[in-house]
Amino acid sequence: MSPGFTGSPLDRADRVRNDAEAYGALLGDWRARILGLDGLDPVLAAEGGLVWHSAAELSGSEELILLGLSDGKPHFVALAEAEGDVFRSPAIWRALSMLPAEDAAIYGTARSLIEWHNGHRFCGKCGHLTTLFRAGWGRKCGNCGKEHFPRTDPVVIMLAEYDGKALVGRQSRFPPGNYSALAGFLEPGESIEEAVRREIHEEAGITCGKVRYVTSQPWPFGGAQLMIACIVDAVDDAITLDTDELEDAKWISKEEAQAALENAESRTFNAPPPFAIAHSLLKHWATT
Amino acid sequence: MSPGFTGSPLDRADRVRNDAEAYGALLGDWRARILGLDGLDPVLAAEGGLVWHSAAELSGSEELILLGLSDGKPHFVALAEAEGDVFRSPAIWRALSMLPAEDAAIYGTARSLIEWHNGHRFCGKCGHLTTLFRAGWGRKCGNCGKEHFPRTDPVVIMLAEYDGKALVGRQSRFPPGNYSALAGFLEPGESIEEAVRREIHEEAGITCGKVRYVTSQPWPFGGAQLMIACIVDAVDDAITLDTDELEDAKWISKEEAQAALENAESRTFNAPPPFAIAHSLLKHWATT
Ligand SMILES: [Zn+2]
Ligand SMILES: [Zn+2]
Repeated sequence: MSPGFTGSPLDRADRVRNDAEAYGALLGDWRARILGLDGLDPVLAAEGGLVWHSAAELSGSEELILLGLSDGKPHFVALAEAEGDVFRSPAIWRALSMLPAEDAAIYGTARSLIEWHNGHRFCGKCGHLTTLFRAGWGRKCGNCGKEHFPRTDPVVIMLAEYDGKALVGRQSRFPPGNYSALAGFLEPGESIEEAVRREIHEEAGITCGKVRYVTSQPWPFGGAQLMIACIVDAVDDAITLDTDELEDAKWISKEEAQAALENAESRTFNAPPPFAIAHSLLKHWATT
Repeated sequence: MSPGFTGSPLDRADRVRNDAEAYGALLGDWRARILGLDGLDPVLAAEGGLVWHSAAELSGSEELILLGLSDGKPHFVALAEAEGDVFRSPAIWRALSMLPAEDAAIYGTARSLIEWHNGHRFCGKCGHLTTLFRAGWGRKCGNCGKEHFPRTDPVVIMLAEYDGKALVGRQSRFPPGNYSALAGFLEPGESIEEAVRREIHEEAGITCGKVRYVTSQPWPFGGAQLMIACIVDAVDDAITLDTDELEDAKWISKEEAQAALENAESRTFNAPPPFAIAHSLLKHWATT
């Protein structure tokens, strides 16, 4: 299985974004599809996929973002001022467990862009209003002219490995019994490898060595993030917990990881859901 | 050799950033060292390393950023309003070729943070002034209270590989004869692997398959970037150039890569400098 929120079938059609004529034609295309949303949450069709509206249902005052093309049909999402906290929304976790992978990838892109626009209505450099441009893939300052682009925050997420066991931890906001891979934002001035070692040392007090990259996926909640999953060799296994970050951390065997991923009765913890990269990472580690 | 701008000897001391008392002690430490800068450029000591000043040389009105600790000594940089365009500064390229790797890593972190502060003096959400907090590792809005953190933009940089050859390209702003790996910003809603395939397809019209991660490094110019270097299998070798992005692209052999990296007379192109990740990537490809 591919990591969560990957595999969008849409062609992002980067070249159209800067081409006023070609973009105008897409805006006027009667086959255009507009993503159905409830605030920031996905609306699910009876069959479980995303709901799409026709452009005829728009009021005309919406600001649109071009998500991409499929079979030549333009797919848009309308900018919404909604805010959402995914960790307080059981509805979205249910929706994500039902959405086909391709639809989850489209939804993730749309949500990331909407959250980015809402957080960048003003210019960080001079404080004036910005306006949407480049088909929704940028905002431009009306005063100083600075162009702002929707990028993503890299997050490292990793399993430290020692003597055939892997380190998992839990935050106090997790549901009871849930454990996951440790994770944290990469900071300016460090490589992926340096961020992985720093985070494990900060959160669990463990010194680590060689880092192996495993896989990556986007994460669309709380701003666009790029999750970068790694395995890293631990030099020792004595845990010194940073209790501001983690409530608990423990070493698990590959059998324990398998049981958790299969939700077996014998499991010693609850694994993250399949659309979280920690699930892909645990599975990779347990089966290789 | 490690990738450029990695290997900083400073402990980032994340926990001190939120601890007013501990941070106050560092600010008052007579052993504190302040990074010497000329605008945004590094100042080089006679021996080739960075120059550090004592806190006694500060006017007291500077805003300081805690870069980290070494042997218990706090290392700071003062916020400067300077702007710089690295591509128009021959002086900085010369300086980078002389700086020891550890010093380049410290300088890169400092420059990334200063550029981030200068671009985030106002709140993107509400337009009001923000002020520095968390020892320089954040800014907080005085109006809506939103906290802004200095993160990094992921950039994928990659060699497409076909029949033992690798694809390199040149932009019109490169010095004559210079070629490098293709690169581009990762967008919201895509994985590293998807961004690599999209960029090669956009810039060179080549469809690609399996992606292999190679290494990463920070890049401190034009805002903090995280460079993620990969090799990707090309499905065919027919190049369709996007002339808005590239002036030329061509397939090179491992022998050609070696000759360029060694700056041999027989070279067919000029390779990127050692502190650019494209150099590390070409070397990895040519020698494995
Ligand atoms: Zn502005
Ligand atoms: Zn604000």
